[in-house]
Amino acid sequence: MPRVVTLTTDFGSGSGYVAELKGLLLHAKTPFALADISHDVPPHDIRAAAWLVGQSCSAFPSGTLHIVVVDPGVGTERGLVWARLGTAESHQDFLCPDNGVLTLAVQRLPLIAARRLAIPADAAATFHGRDVLAPLAVRLVDGLTPESLGSPIEELATFHWPSHQETPTGIRGEVISIDAFGNLVTNLPASFLPRLAATGRLRVGPHEITTIVRTYGEAAKGTAVALVGSQGFIEAAVVEGRADERLSARIGTPVAIQTPA
Amino acid sequence: MPRVVTLTTDFGSGSGYVAELKGLLLHAKTPFALADISHDVPPHDIRAAAWLVGQSCSAFPSGTLHIVVVDPGVGTERGLVWARLGTAESHQDFLCPDNGVLTLAVQRLPLIAARRLAIPADAAATFHGRDVLAPLAVRLVDGLTPESLGSPIEELATFHWPSHQETPTGIRGEVISIDAFGNLVTNLPASFLPRLAATGRLRVGPHEITTIVRTYGEAAKGTAVALVGSQGFIEAAVVEGRADERLSARIGTPVAIQTPA
Amino acid sequence: MPRVVTLTTDFGSGSGYVAELKGLLLHAKTPFALADISHDVPPHDIRAAAWLVGQSCSAFPSGTLHIVVVDPGVGTERGLVWARLGTAESHQDFLCPDNGVLTLAVQRLPLIAARRLAIPADAAATFHGRDVLAPLAVRLVDGLTPESLGSPIEELATFHWPSHQETPTGIRGEVISIDAFGNLVTNLPASFLPRLAATGRLRVGPHEITTIVRTYGEAAKGTAVALVGSQGFIEAAVVEGRADERLSARIGTPVAIQTPA
Repeated sequence: MPRVVTLTTDFGSGSGYVAELKGLLLHAKTPFALADISHDVPPHDIRAAAWLVGQSCSAFPSGTLHIVVVDPGVGTERGLVWARLGTAESHQDFLCPDNGVLTLAVQRLPLIAARRLAIPADAAATFHGRDVLAPLAVRLVDGLTPESLGSPIEELATFHWPSHQETPTGIRGEVISIDAFGNLVTNLPASFLPRLAATGRLRVGPHEITTIVRTYGEAAKGTAVALVGSQGFIEAAVVEGRADERLSARIGTPVAIQTPA
Repeated sequence: MPRVVTLTTDFGSGSGYVAELKGLLLHAKTPFALADISHDVPPHDIRAAAWLVGQSCSAFPSGTLHIVVVDPGVGTERGLVWARLGTAESHQDFLCPDNGVLTLAVQRLPLIAARRLAIPADAAATFHGRDVLAPLAVRLVDGLTPESLGSPIEELATFHWPSHQETPTGIRGEVISIDAFGNLVTNLPASFLPRLAATGRLRVGPHEITTIVRTYGEAAKGTAVALVGSQGFIEAAVVEGRADERLSARIGTPVAIQTPA
Repeated sequence: MPRVVTLTTDFGSGSGYVAELKGLLLHAKTPFALADISHDVPPHDIRAAAWLVGQSCSAFPSGTLHIVVVDPGVGTERGLVWARLGTAESHQDFLCPDNGVLTLAVQRLPLIAARRLAIPADAAATFHGRDVLAPLAVRLVDGLTPESLGSPIEELATFHWPSHQETPTGIRGEVISIDAFGNLVTNLPASFLPRLAATGRLRVGPHEITTIVRTYGEAAKGTAVALVGSQGFIEAAVVEGRADERLSARIGTPVAIQTPA
């Protein structure tokens, strides 16, 4: 395959803003594969974008260029960056605002290099994705070396990413993502499965799930279950139903594996 | 064009699960064209996926590889399959769970060959699309022969697909799909058009449509009409309106062309 | 990059109709890049399609072929057209119904040539996109010259596109598009910014916006602001909120910059 370029935005599927981005990117002379990751990030939701990018970027071939335009601060003093994360053997490149959208990615893949991009005077103050990032992506696809992209920076802006905590009464965490099935992805790593199995219950807000399974289809339809999800975290689900609705949960709802008394 | 690979899932547009699938697929060394069919199949809805795949797969070039991940039974004893449907001259290939998603496709295109895939021990029990199907797709794109894919099977799992029935009082069927316009696609084949025209009415649940047209725009805006739709079935529609709402219809609502008394 | 072909429809994301279009297009022998612009144009909404196409088509490389299937009059006497807009150096090509979907595009890019397409007798009366446009697109991608496409026509069907008006009491316009953020794009060109700044207020329906900014992030979250948007028009927005809801505005809501008394 030729080089891959991905797009992640909060513009909405079918938005003309996405069309403008694609149109400009396709001016590259060198063939590349353009892959939509999402245009349905909730508007202005940097945290959701950070989860999505962090979750999926490593799946792409080394050298993939990820363009992320979730940018409520467009045109203000927040910077725009090019960044390379990973290792010498396998790395992912990014063009995005320096507003925390790489918070999770940079936890998982070491920062190799980053540069703060210059913003041309004639860029529309409201659409740097189109007027700054897309033209630079074209030049990178066509062979520009990242070293010519602006001044190097030592670190990327990040925000606090909630992690689980060990307490005397148990392990506490929270819901960090809800997928299209209504499954609740928590920030309790899969390594806690033995403790979950020993205790036999996962607390989600005021609710308690007492069916621990290996996969969704192991319990009857409608059962609330806890399991290790595909992201490597403990997940709460309802078999062929929606855990978010059944358990009245949302991003940030506390979860816990209690220490047996 | 290079070979085509399509994706059909119930993960939701913009889902990180789709991004992971795409990222892995794009590791193929051989260039291919990746086409999204849908990521908006209703969650766990094997019947909707079967309709979508059956309706559209034949439109693709021979040799297209369709990856279908609508898989409520992931990680249970249901199998995963590679299948080839069609003829020696023109065939469509599939990688999917053996759960009925090919029910309609295999009614329309003869089964040429199928193989049950081995599931590696380290595959996440909740995401075989990512851990089994995507890597196999890459190998197939890069030249692996299907014969090395596991043991051959004689038939695919299918479920009962409702067909129309001739009765003394008329032809009875049901709504099998509702499109984004709210048009009701029935399972009454286009060949019944003369009888529909002779009777002059299509019954949809408790309602009767008495305007038979050749295309939507032949009646005034807001008129409920019956016509032969593009899928080769009789369809109920409301001109520039929504038949599903007007006629309170949904998948499974009975339809009939009554025999003149 | 190889030639680009785009798709714009009102079929809905994940529709089988889109899959059929893509499958047929991918029969071209010559490699091309297929880009989805939108499948979420509101059903039958020619005006919305005209805005989307007019807004985004110029971003694509010269020679891009845009297929637009928003076609409530399919199968009636409305024609189908091939059209080329732009200049000798840089042009965009279109295959679409001649129903006004190019109204805005042809205001912005001069018509170079257009041809009315013949409709084969065996085309389904309800899906000319699949049965007429897609096969022609394949032939065009594979080298067919547009001159063989049917008889030339002198102009395209267009509808009245609302423009702003100068009145003794000020400049009057209306909301012409609402994006996924709820931002209200008006038909007041950016050139009125000095007058907006001088007056210090933008009227939107019964509401008055008194904060004029350069970009969204320049005012506190929740503030209603007026600014020049990325499309070159004056826009009303609510910082990290939804202007359409706050101001109860929709397409057609009047806007005005009043002349200082």
